[in-house]
Amino acid sequence: MSNERYERGERMLSDVDGPAGLAVVDSLSKSFPDFARYLVEFPFGDIYARKALSLREREVATVAALCALGNALPQLRVHVHAALHVGCTPAEVIEVVMQMAVYAGFPAALNGLSVVREVFAEAGIALPLPNNHEEIREGSATGT
Amino acid sequence: MSNERYERGERMLSDVDGPAGLAVVDSLSKSFPDFARYLVEFPFGDIYARKALSLREREVATVAALCALGNALPQLRVHVHAALHVGCTPAEVIEVVMQMAVYAGFPAALNGLSVVREVFAEAGIALPLPNNHEEIREGSATGT
Amino acid sequence: MSNERYERGERMLSDVDGPAGLAVVDSLSKSFPDFARYLVEFPFGDIYARKALSLREREVATVAALCALGNALPQLRVHVHAALHVGCTPAEVIEVVMQMAVYAGFPAALNGLSVVREVFAEAGIALPLPNNHEEIREGSATGT
Amino acid sequence: MSNERYERGERMLSDVDGPAGLAVVDSLSKSFPDFARYLVEFPFGDIYARKALSLREREVATVAALCALGNALPQLRVHVHAALHVGCTPAEVIEVVMQMAVYAGFPAALNGLSVVREVFAEAGIALPLPNNHEEIREGSATGT
Amino acid sequence: MSNERYERGERMLSDVDGPAGLAVVDSLSKSFPDFARYLVEFPFGDIYARKALSLREREVATVAALCALGNALPQLRVHVHAALHVGCTPAEVIEVVMQMAVYAGFPAALNGLSVVREVFAEAGIALPLPNNHEEIREGSATGT
Amino acid sequence: MSNERYERGERMLSDVDGPAGLAVVDSLSKSFPDFARYLVEFPFGDIYARKALSLREREVATVAALCALGNALPQLRVHVHAALHVGCTPAEVIEVVMQMAVYAGFPAALNGLSVVREVFAEAGIALPLPNNHEEIREGSATGT
Repeated sequence: MSNERYERGERMLSDVDGPAGLAVVDSLSKSFPDFARYLVEFPFGDIYARKALSLREREVATVAALCALGNALPQLRVHVHAALHVGCTPAEVIEVVMQMAVYAGFPAALNGLSVVREVFAEAGIALPLPNNHEEIREGSATGT
Repeated sequence: MSNERYERGERMLSDVDGPAGLAVVDSLSKSFPDFARYLVEFPFGDIYARKALSLREREVATVAALCALGNALPQLRVHVHAALHVGCTPAEVIEVVMQMAVYAGFPAALNGLSVVREVFAEAGIALPLPNNHEEIREGSATGT
Repeated sequence: MSNERYERGERMLSDVDGPAGLAVVDSLSKSFPDFARYLVEFPFGDIYARKALSLREREVATVAALCALGNALPQLRVHVHAALHVGCTPAEVIEVVMQMAVYAGFPAALNGLSVVREVFAEAGIALPLPNNHEEIREGSATGT
Repeated sequence: MSNERYERGERMLSDVDGPAGLAVVDSLSKSFPDFARYLVEFPFGDIYARKALSLREREVATVAALCALGNALPQLRVHVHAALHVGCTPAEVIEVVMQMAVYAGFPAALNGLSVVREVFAEAGIALPLPNNHEEIREGSATGT
Repeated sequence: MSNERYERGERMLSDVDGPAGLAVVDSLSKSFPDFARYLVEFPFGDIYARKALSLREREVATVAALCALGNALPQLRVHVHAALHVGCTPAEVIEVVMQMAVYAGFPAALNGLSVVREVFAEAGIALPLPNNHEEIREGSATGT
Repeated sequence: MSNERYERGERMLSDVDGPAGLAVVDSLSKSFPDFARYLVEFPFGDIYARKALSLREREVATVAALCALGNALPQLRVHVHAALHVGCTPAEVIEVVMQMAVYAGFPAALNGLSVVREVFAEAGIALPLPNNHEEIREGSATGT
């Protein structure tokens, strides 16, 4: 049953997070094989496989949501890694997390940045980023 | 004090959501002028003004976060509108909301889709979208 | 693809909530057909179909969770109805919601009881329940 | 004042979680004696003592709620233990937690399963459970 | 049983919110008499009755918490009213809600301010408050 | 740009939490200098600097909100410390956290009390507090 979804999900998971993602599922399946299968089939085999959004945009959405929820830090760690894996720059990842201060409060953003710092350290990304004083856009004149 | 941030924030707010965004702030400032000022200055004058993320990606992040939080439906409505305004396609907006079923559960996604339906109706976007049976990507072969 | 899961999900949804459940999915599929399909396939075709828990226990769990989350009142309404449909007594439903005061606070329980009152009114269940002054168990002697 | 409620609460707490539950209260009372008293009196002396729901069903509701909330993992640990103590099978506990993927998202369920794994390890329950490929019910024919 | 707590709770509820608070309990007791009793006994008879915090400070804490949680707007409405009843000024109530933008995000504060506006309108408090451009304290010199 | 806000924010942060608060910002600025600046400018330079609420009341609100949210324990730790720093008594801090059992459930209060215990231990405040059996107010006669 549903072999097609599982296999597609496994390929998507690999595209999204590389060997690290597959390792999470392998570890989970040792204790909870049915749930590991659902995790591959629905999120990855069904949702991430849809072409309407790029993987890069999917990871922007996921990092934002997990940071805002605030009670899913182990999963945020996985998806900060995944965001880098699908081509988000370190600056973009930081930017998404900082933006969550607006929608979920400063504690959510601060705890998200702690996760970012850990993942970046493992990935050899030095902080602060070189051009840490971001350029500011001024907005179009239509707003005045 | 901080006139520069306010004016930039007002321009950004207009870039993000057009006259609708400015109307929200105008209405708010009639009752709570100080908070209306902070709303323009920090989220828009400070955060959205940063160039490290496109406005389109910022709205992907915001729609995801507000849908996942689940207790901010009036703001989700504003940002579904804003997402369309900065160039997200209707299909992309639906996609972000559907993805939240994975991270925040089906009720969060269902309530998000109710908001999407209302905003789309106001914007004259017919549902279901024509190509509602999304193409599925199959993932690269590296996952097997 | 996955016809088997969809058909089983549809049967489970009917077992769980009768025509009301199917009507929710029909309405959803008019705007968001893909998400309506996922809603049938994963929650009902995969999860509710598992024999390890009775439908009655599944609804106890779902009413508890939706009441505790507090941002899913439309779904709580559906599942208070479903709980009665799978054989929970009105007293049991009230009891689950009252218990949430302990774990999610009095506001969550109060908002849950408002939903219960609405669903019971539609179902013709008069409140307060006749034996509203619950019998109290005294606990075994082993605790002293 | 309220000795009767306290004593009944202590007996109920013992019925629900055995010596482990009483130990939690003892430890708490060393630092916060008033709050420890409230914890015995209201949740256990008032709510759990009501006969309208079995202790087994109460623990199904509590495990579901704490897993869905996602920010109460120490308490989820206590109640996974309590669920086993009042007669839930290991398979039933896993089933309730897996179901939370539907209502609170996959991260909530994954973090809940991590707690389950820890409690089961302490209780000497090997994972995966022997019949981990659950039987599937097919639903009645009324749904078609 | 526990008549003393109930009667003290009823007096505290009246002190906290006047006839409006008692009306909430009366209405609730028509449908859910046991829960209405718990609501009087534990929050008001036990917690609010403790002298360690003034009622004014208790309402600052409650308005903050309900605004931050974001899924308890009916209760926030009751406690904005209560905050005024126990002597918080309108400016103080607004201030607590605005501060929640920092800890729970701008949407939580915005939805809280909507509730404030409704309660103030019923209470005949005109907005914006006359001295809406708040004086700013400059902080002591020790921070530099 | 915005030097005035930053300097005022730094003074307010010092008033609120002493050297500990400034150390948090210093540490943060090593990895995320822009976000460290926003943290000083908006929460402290804008919000805490407003005179409409005393710092003591601001900390009552913040401890309440962070305890109720339940996913911000590192920040709750900072603000339990800050509450003591601006003049809340240990009994008052405990009282605010206990009150959260009413609004956010017993787990939120229990996890909050764990944080309180840790901060008090570092601050040399012995638990239980000497007069831990709080005096009870009886409420005015107007409630009967």
